[in-house]
Amino acid sequence: MVPDRLTVAALDELVAGDSREREHYEGGAADGEALTGCSFLECRFTGVTLTDAELRGSRFVETVFEAPFAHTLKAARTTWRDVRVVNPRWGSAELFDSELDSVHLTGGKIDYLNLRGSRLSNVVLEGCTITDLDLADARVTRVAFVDCRIGTLDVTRASCCSVDLRSSEFSRLHGIEGLAGATIDDLQLSLFAPLFAEHLGLRVEG
Amino acid sequence: MVPDRLTVAALDELVAGDSREREHYEGGAADGEALTGCSFLECRFTGVTLTDAELRGSRFVETVFEAPFAHTLKAARTTWRDVRVVNPRWGSAELFDSELDSVHLTGGKIDYLNLRGSRLSNVVLEGCTITDLDLADARVTRVAFVDCRIGTLDVTRASCCSVDLRSSEFSRLHGIEGLAGATIDDLQLSLFAPLFAEHLGLRVEG
Repeated sequence: MVPDRLTVAALDELVAGDSREREHYEGGAADGEALTGCSFLECRFTGVTLTDAELRGSRFVETVFEAPFAHTLKAARTTWRDVRVVNPRWGSAELFDSELDSVHLTGGKIDYLNLRGSRLSNVVLEGCTITDLDLADARVTRVAFVDCRIGTLDVTRASCCSVDLRSSEFSRLHGIEGLAGATIDDLQLSLFAPLFAEHLGLRVEG
Repeated sequence: MVPDRLTVAALDELVAGDSREREHYEGGAADGEALTGCSFLECRFTGVTLTDAELRGSRFVETVFEAPFAHTLKAARTTWRDVRVVNPRWGSAELFDSELDSVHLTGGKIDYLNLRGSRLSNVVLEGCTITDLDLADARVTRVAFVDCRIGTLDVTRASCCSVDLRSSEFSRLHGIEGLAGATIDDLQLSLFAPLFAEHLGLRVEG
């Protein structure tokens, strides 16, 4: 997805509104920098720290993030197309109102992944540990969770189409009616059953 | 509930609109008779056959039925208050739009118990085998199923309050959203779970 020959570049050269192509950022931090409205095409970020960097409105296309780190990732209203994110370590990842198309998120640990109101299509999350995954009001199409460990999944008012939760662990679900259109496995069915009953107004007593 | 000293009476004396009190009907058949709008107070029916007897609008108060039989029981818009029915053998029991208050149904076998649109309160069904139990549009309050075997339970648009399904078997459920307000047990939860998932628009695949 990303070509081999990239120009080495440094995060501290970046300014808001930049349009960068075929660059490789290795290490370094852009903590607190204003990087709104940037565009990255065919870039690679390796081991960069982006705590509180203001990425609002930026675009990442055909780009790879390897072991990205941020206490808070300020990336609302961003666009991610043909992007691979490997082993992220994010505290609060604010990606609400974003567009993710053909995104592959592998491994890593995220405390709070906020995708409220976002549009996700052709997204795979594989082997990720996410404490809180917020998909409230999101449009979620062709999304698969593979061997993930999710604490709380919030799908309040979400609309799901071809969403595959099988093989992943979900400890808590909020807004389950938003899960219509998803596929679960037998184990998940038995784990979620009390929640379904509660949602239907049924009491369960031995 | 029923006093010991009852007057022995015969089914073939009955006519539509009769008001009978403290009578005992033992055996006999009123098949196809027009018995609409009758009232029975503190009566006992033992082993009577009422196939196609037209009982529409009749009232049964503080009355006991023992081993009643009917291929078709035509008892729409009837009132049953403080009534005990023991070991009924009914094919199609048409009790739609009826009022049942303090009714205890014990044992027996009913192919189709049609209680559509009826109001049930303080009703106990105990040890009954019912192939199809239709409670669509019914108002069901303080009703318990004890050790019953129910094939299909239809609760489409029913409203349930303090309804206890525990300890009984239900093979199929229709209109489960009408079951809000009912109590189920853990086994029923696991049996109903696929239905709940389907109702929520979820697919379940191993």
